[in-house]
Amino acid sequence: MNIDLNSDLGESLGAWRMGDDDAMLDIVTSANVACGFHAGDPAGILATLKAAAARGVAVGAHVAYPDLVGFGRRAMDIASADLVAGVIYQIGALRGLAATTGARVRYVKPHGALYNTIAHDARQARDVIAAIRAADPELALVALAGSPLVGWAREAGLRVVSEAFADRAYTAQGTLVPRGQPGAVLHDPAQVAARMLRLVREGVVEAIDGSLTRVEAESICVHGDSAGAVAMAAELRRVLHDAGVGLRAFA
Amino acid sequence: MNIDLNSDLGESLGAWRMGDDDAMLDIVTSANVACGFHAGDPAGILATLKAAAARGVAVGAHVAYPDLVGFGRRAMDIASADLVAGVIYQIGALRGLAATTGARVRYVKPHGALYNTIAHDARQARDVIAAIRAADPELALVALAGSPLVGWAREAGLRVVSEAFADRAYTAQGTLVPRGQPGAVLHDPAQVAARMLRLVREGVVEAIDGSLTRVEAESICVHGDSAGAVAMAAELRRVLHDAGVGLRAFA
Amino acid sequence: MNIDLNSDLGESLGAWRMGDDDAMLDIVTSANVACGFHAGDPAGILATLKAAAARGVAVGAHVAYPDLVGFGRRAMDIASADLVAGVIYQIGALRGLAATTGARVRYVKPHGALYNTIAHDARQARDVIAAIRAADPELALVALAGSPLVGWAREAGLRVVSEAFADRAYTAQGTLVPRGQPGAVLHDPAQVAARMLRLVREGVVEAIDGSLTRVEAESICVHGDSAGAVAMAAELRRVLHDAGVGLRAFA
Amino acid sequence: MNIDLNSDLGESLGAWRMGDDDAMLDIVTSANVACGFHAGDPAGILATLKAAAARGVAVGAHVAYPDLVGFGRRAMDIASADLVAGVIYQIGALRGLAATTGARVRYVKPHGALYNTIAHDARQARDVIAAIRAADPELALVALAGSPLVGWAREAGLRVVSEAFADRAYTAQGTLVPRGQPGAVLHDPAQVAARMLRLVREGVVEAIDGSLTRVEAESICVHGDSAGAVAMAAELRRVLHDAGVGLRAFA
Repeated sequence: MNIDLNSDLGESLGAWRMGDDDAMLDIVTSANVACGFHAGDPAGILATLKAAAARGVAVGAHVAYPDLVGFGRRAMDIASADLVAGVIYQIGALRGLAATTGARVRYVKPHGALYNTIAHDARQARDVIAAIRAADPELALVALAGSPLVGWAREAGLRVVSEAFADRAYTAQGTLVPRGQPGAVLHDPAQVAARMLRLVREGVVEAIDGSLTRVEAESICVHGDSAGAVAMAAELRRVLHDAGVGLRAFA
Repeated sequence: MNIDLNSDLGESLGAWRMGDDDAMLDIVTSANVACGFHAGDPAGILATLKAAAARGVAVGAHVAYPDLVGFGRRAMDIASADLVAGVIYQIGALRGLAATTGARVRYVKPHGALYNTIAHDARQARDVIAAIRAADPELALVALAGSPLVGWAREAGLRVVSEAFADRAYTAQGTLVPRGQPGAVLHDPAQVAARMLRLVREGVVEAIDGSLTRVEAESICVHGDSAGAVAMAAELRRVLHDAGVGLRAFA
Repeated sequence: MNIDLNSDLGESLGAWRMGDDDAMLDIVTSANVACGFHAGDPAGILATLKAAAARGVAVGAHVAYPDLVGFGRRAMDIASADLVAGVIYQIGALRGLAATTGARVRYVKPHGALYNTIAHDARQARDVIAAIRAADPELALVALAGSPLVGWAREAGLRVVSEAFADRAYTAQGTLVPRGQPGAVLHDPAQVAARMLRLVREGVVEAIDGSLTRVEAESICVHGDSAGAVAMAAELRRVLHDAGVGLRAFA
Repeated sequence: MNIDLNSDLGESLGAWRMGDDDAMLDIVTSANVACGFHAGDPAGILATLKAAAARGVAVGAHVAYPDLVGFGRRAMDIASADLVAGVIYQIGALRGLAATTGARVRYVKPHGALYNTIAHDARQARDVIAAIRAADPELALVALAGSPLVGWAREAGLRVVSEAFADRAYTAQGTLVPRGQPGAVLHDPAQVAARMLRLVREGVVEAIDGSLTRVEAESICVHGDSAGAVAMAAELRRVLHDAGVGLRAFA
């Protein structure tokens, strides 16, 4: 039994720090690295890529809408030509930087509002799929487990890696409980680790209504934007490792 | 006898147009394409790259300081880490877009204030050279004929292509007459074409004091930012062609 | 009988030109001046404000979403705190520049996607109304004639100026025919002028189905983004003037 | 005996946090608030302004070069038209936001590379002075004690407030020891407080060579960008207060 742990990294910007990339790179097996559209300046991105390469952590392009001030979290009605070319641009920029560290970009994980939108929006999903295929058809796409995007991307010939979220509650239908709702975000590291261990072993998580729901995931997303988040991720890694689960990049 | 004609293209930004890329791509043999730092949005850059590929025009990365509002024309005291990573980022982004058109980025030509600064500033020159070598040591560097940069880049192992400026006056020392000075910019297409033909044939231009000065150039830079500029470039191409000069990309 | 003519100005950005502000300032009575979020850099905005002040043209703040590359034309799911503060910021910046020309900002006209969104979206409309009231309750709001926004803003105590669009077709219900539909945009200056003259005199326009529809407008929006657009605006002004209509800023 | 304590605040940007504005607003008497060019988004700036207003802390415009990624710390060869209009724009934006909190912007303190440049560069200094006078001749200018800027601004009719830096070493000539040199930055809160108390009482600081040098300062700049910096500022305030020095905004 193996699983991948991924996290969003390289999200500092100039003088502004975000997260603790070094700590997280000791925990995760895949690093979703910002490409400059929602976060990340070239020198900071390169530093994160070097740190990932030094640890053998796999690297993916964390592509986003062009919106630094909104951190890529604002839904945007972007034209297809802009979205397609923007995703290719970001992948290319990251590949260029990664190559100087001896690493290859292995996958694409859309960020924030783009991630949420293409999980369900067919037009923008098609644009992102087309961009990835144009950039490099070998790139995998990390997508929300159970979302329509998984099927659309597979039909288009992309390798799709479904992911679960360690600290999020699920509905009985296997979808995420929306952030605004009570209980949507989990805070107990032991509970989170136990849930994810069950997910890896049995392919199920306990939904918010107490039922069991099937979630097919090749990767688990963990956060590193606070000391508590880093500790939760470290605990998850420890529990998985102690249970004999192999922690390996999917790529 | 052959010469290359290069021009700055892909400099529109979203709703803002700049230059007539289609007209210029019918004239030049090498297109310096903006990479998003001083000009160019991904969709516009991609459109220019497609138009260049359709005509077989060679493509170079027109890298710049990160300064859209200043159009990359403002000297900037940028740290080496930012400059090196920024140049790699821009080359990578352009390569990613170009690859989808079936083209390769063949060279790098710094833009505006970065071009002027590294012609003489050893520290920033070293940063740009290091970035190009890290991105792809096969890339040529287009540099101001006669500038210290030419030697620095060759010593570092880069292929350097020296360029002359069609519409600029030269001093007796073979340097450009600064823009602010009387006579620095030439406006007569016939005069410009005759000067450049002599440059190609004899390796000399008539300096502003009437003397002849040696300028070694493998490429001639022409502008396309006005109807008059496009007409001047077309006239230059016509005169060179009629004189039996081969118009070929250096790359 | 009087009417106001308004147009979007100050939309150049650094090296990029847009429109012919000087020509349009000879035609319109109110200038919607960009504030830097969708277009306009400080020096360019100031130049437009000076030109407006020299002609006695009234000035309004053309506030927008923060999106230069998208020119403020992309719908954006922006948080209320960001929208409210962003509108106050833009109005303040424009007032500061305008004051140095001896002029006051008299009104606010939202731009592009923000204009379209708040015409119907109650939450974002409330945010913009709150921002204007916080900035200066004397400011008028220019809004789409017949839209829900007109009522919302009046209920909140704002002076609202309804506007018609000179070059747009209307439905029988008095709404704009969406841009994508056939016949949505009018191109004949004589037809446009005749329609607007009837609007001023009778308060009606001929809808796309041939019926007459009532449009209550204190201002007519004209465009200046091409030579044809400027000519159409000039023709409209001439026809209105020759018919004895007073061309006066509403403010 | 009175003195003002000032600090740079409002420097967060969207999702990125910088400094602890609430803690610093309990310490300082004047808040230099970012205006969006080097840092600060409108909603974050407004939150800082509200917090300052709630405590009666005076507010100044911390104007900067337009350079978010460089945090305004990169010297930039900006044209006068852009610098003048940019400073007016920033002051206007901050005044607009401040007015909604019931506060007035009382002064201008240039940031980072602009601060350092205009301390000595006559052209850019003249531009900033002209911008402040155009925006509001009542605004004071906070300037480096002993710099040429102090005289230039006074000659132009501006009120100038000279400031000392709590954590910086001085040369025997009363200038700052450049950051790169050994001993340039002080780290001991007790030493810093004792130095500044002497500055307030006697108008002198001990220079790095052990001599006493005269520094005329109406304000002391303290930093809040780390927990240690906040603690140093708090200690300085405590020592000054216990010694009977009045802590009052100069404005």
